[in-house]
Amino acid sequence: MTAIGILGSEGRMGRAIAAVATDLGATVAGGVDAGGDPLALAKASDVLVDFTAPGALEANLAAACEGGTPIVVGTTGLTAQHHALIDNAAARIAVLQTSTTSLGITLLARLVADAAEKLGPDWDIEIVEAHHRHKVDAPSGTALLLGEAAAEGRGAPLGDLKVVDRAGLIGARAEGTIGFASIRGGSIAGDHQVILAGSGERLELIHRAESREIFARGAVRAALWLAGQPAGRYAMAEVLGL
Amino acid sequence: MTAIGILGSEGRMGRAIAAVATDLGATVAGGVDAGGDPLALAKASDVLVDFTAPGALEANLAAACEGGTPIVVGTTGLTAQHHALIDNAAARIAVLQTSTTSLGITLLARLVADAAEKLGPDWDIEIVEAHHRHKVDAPSGTALLLGEAAAEGRGAPLGDLKVVDRAGLIGARAEGTIGFASIRGGSIAGDHQVILAGSGERLELIHRAESREIFARGAVRAALWLAGQPAGRYAMAEVLGL
Amino acid sequence: MTAIGILGSEGRMGRAIAAVATDLGATVAGGVDAGGDPLALAKASDVLVDFTAPGALEANLAAACEGGTPIVVGTTGLTAQHHALIDNAAARIAVLQTSTTSLGITLLARLVADAAEKLGPDWDIEIVEAHHRHKVDAPSGTALLLGEAAAEGRGAPLGDLKVVDRAGLIGARAEGTIGFASIRGGSIAGDHQVILAGSGERLELIHRAESREIFARGAVRAALWLAGQPAGRYAMAEVLGL
Amino acid sequence: MTAIGILGSEGRMGRAIAAVATDLGATVAGGVDAGGDPLALAKASDVLVDFTAPGALEANLAAACEGGTPIVVGTTGLTAQHHALIDNAAARIAVLQTSTTSLGITLLARLVADAAEKLGPDWDIEIVEAHHRHKVDAPSGTALLLGEAAAEGRGAPLGDLKVVDRAGLIGARAEGTIGFASIRGGSIAGDHQVILAGSGERLELIHRAESREIFARGAVRAALWLAGQPAGRYAMAEVLGL
Repeated sequence: MTAIGILGSEGRMGRAIAAVATDLGATVAGGVDAGGDPLALAKASDVLVDFTAPGALEANLAAACEGGTPIVVGTTGLTAQHHALIDNAAARIAVLQTSTTSLGITLLARLVADAAEKLGPDWDIEIVEAHHRHKVDAPSGTALLLGEAAAEGRGAPLGDLKVVDRAGLIGARAEGTIGFASIRGGSIAGDHQVILAGSGERLELIHRAESREIFARGAVRAALWLAGQPAGRYAMAEVLGL
Repeated sequence: MTAIGILGSEGRMGRAIAAVATDLGATVAGGVDAGGDPLALAKASDVLVDFTAPGALEANLAAACEGGTPIVVGTTGLTAQHHALIDNAAARIAVLQTSTTSLGITLLARLVADAAEKLGPDWDIEIVEAHHRHKVDAPSGTALLLGEAAAEGRGAPLGDLKVVDRAGLIGARAEGTIGFASIRGGSIAGDHQVILAGSGERLELIHRAESREIFARGAVRAALWLAGQPAGRYAMAEVLGL
Repeated sequence: MTAIGILGSEGRMGRAIAAVATDLGATVAGGVDAGGDPLALAKASDVLVDFTAPGALEANLAAACEGGTPIVVGTTGLTAQHHALIDNAAARIAVLQTSTTSLGITLLARLVADAAEKLGPDWDIEIVEAHHRHKVDAPSGTALLLGEAAAEGRGAPLGDLKVVDRAGLIGARAEGTIGFASIRGGSIAGDHQVILAGSGERLELIHRAESREIFARGAVRAALWLAGQPAGRYAMAEVLGL
Repeated sequence: MTAIGILGSEGRMGRAIAAVATDLGATVAGGVDAGGDPLALAKASDVLVDFTAPGALEANLAAACEGGTPIVVGTTGLTAQHHALIDNAAARIAVLQTSTTSLGITLLARLVADAAEKLGPDWDIEIVEAHHRHKVDAPSGTALLLGEAAAEGRGAPLGDLKVVDRAGLIGARAEGTIGFASIRGGSIAGDHQVILAGSGERLELIHRAESREIFARGAVRAALWLAGQPAGRYAMAEVLGL
């Protein structure tokens, strides 16, 4: 059985991963949190999963490289510098970085890129996400991932197209922009809706997560898949055979 | 047949009202726009409809009073001062002021107030509206009307509860607030969704306008109803028998 | 602490109720299933909850009456004869019968009755429900409960208005009917949507259950409330103060 | 300018096509209905559009071949025999047969086929369509087109997978089936929703037509594109460059 080492084992995702691992045919090699020793964990594990914070990434990648242990990076809020660190590590070990571990969302991103490309700029793109009342950031990482898929379909960087505030006398919508809206309430696990609105008709491409458990299960699936891979950088789509 | 005088006859609503009036058993007495003479129109009409701008309201109400002609005020963006002018006019003539002429929205506002009151503050309220790409303001007047209904159900003024911007590190949702989000794209005539999100379950109360014609038809229905009323201030709910 | 006796303790709802009871300030007095002794359980409990099958209702009510123990009846598929049994028992003990224990659905039923009454028969009513792939009956009990609320708003029995099959050359929609559609798939806990479609506009009143746990929690809340009531027949709306 | 001949010019689509043709840079060469002469129309036209009934197809195709005039066939309810007639005609002239002329629906069908293939049979597929109260058949032709796209993604004929009735004690859902549900009410121009429901998450892929005018505009676009094509059988996806 594949032994998974959990970086960030006391976080929400870390605990959820531990809870479902056995059910999916893995074991938990152990876990570390702030102040722990990632290298010892890397040496004891067949594969690492990292759901910590951007600040911990450099040390976690170093431990993975030193231990020769593949690593799934699910931490969000990464910058270009973090991505460079990941690329460096991927020259020595297998690294899978993703902002979602959901099969449905990974497929949705692909459908969105396809639709955005085919429908052209006279179809306006809007992304709406809804999450529970405790979520502290907006838009969600998944909404941004979907926005990047849409922007890719349009052939422009998301940063040039993104509109996140729309209140007051905003004027008519600028062509080609991608609007984001965030709903917060109750215990919503996570809904994402991409609207493509044309003249007289529209498409709505929606993903609904029924519970956060699916993300933990997806992370374990990713870890099981990654454990057998050679050095290189991988994405969730490959785990899912997309 | 009831003769309707249209204040703002060259605007989008003015033209739409003229187009459907005959179909609903009314005639058009005439219309005026900026620079025209509202008093002559008031004298020639059984009832006035005003879809102009807040700045024109005072003169329009004065003409209606002088002519003894009931008036439907559908202009949006009114302040407390405008409402005081309406109250004064309503001592002399029948005045119906409303931010929507849709039967469905008028009923929805009532359902929202009822739900907000019964469900209590541990159910979070969010309002999402979607309109065509040419709309220049956000949130829509109808979204604010629904927000006022929700706030009324909660027993607090909307101004104390309203949250219109949600981007970046916003922190957890504050209890009792009412969030607004605005979608813009394509030719969407107008969708409004009120979400009440509790623990483990949620309600979504939605209105979809298929075309803007319904607002013109509702305005004519309101005018026909108001033509026979004594002095006083009226609301759309009374036209609809709610 | 209130001690709850669970009739049908090995069923899905029975086990879910046992799992959440302590969390809500109750204790579990015990449980019985087919072949067990409901009277012994009634005597040991402050209140009973019955989520068994229609065939067990008569014996369960008899045990409750004999023990002088209030009883929540959540069993679905009851006939007029079962309701007569409940009325008889309610002359001696407190009985709460309901086809849903969800606060959101109970409120939704009230909004639907209100909307159906106010909007009149030229607004067509349709009810769509979605559940997981294992559900064996259609439409769901909750969809029928919402249909009854709509029919009540229209002043006619649901049996006269209900349309459940719509495939092939069905002809134009008959005025005043209430259509039902059932979606089955995946692990959907339960979505219900009531559509009121008029000319040029429509309302959609939706409830989404995120997990089946809410029904267990609602059942415990109902039991806690009922434990202190005098003889009589009660409904979920009273528990919720609607 | 391209001259379009309308077969079925008095039908709802025929009249809508005539209304928008000029706006899109075409002229109307004329129209025929039951009892008219399709050959004379074919000779007077650069391209024909046929929105009549299956019984008229053979004569319409014969006239198109005789006149050497390309033809868009939008008639629904075609059998295998009709498709053989179309294949024969396509050896001599350009024929475009489609059950929808909407760009959005044509793209949606492609997304559905893609999703159905990638997600595999443990994701259940359901198709819900909503139309106005006057529609006489169910499911809609577009719902069946989307079902065929889904079945294609699954590698089986739709006839083997289709489930259209779901009422009473239906038992658990059979794996791999595709369920259809039809909503009828008010003036809904046409909504189509394809649900792919997995374990703990689901996708909803939706198209909303705001008015039936989009289908007339799509038919004119198809005719303009087809007028310049050599003999052969074409599909809407080619018009749209998908």
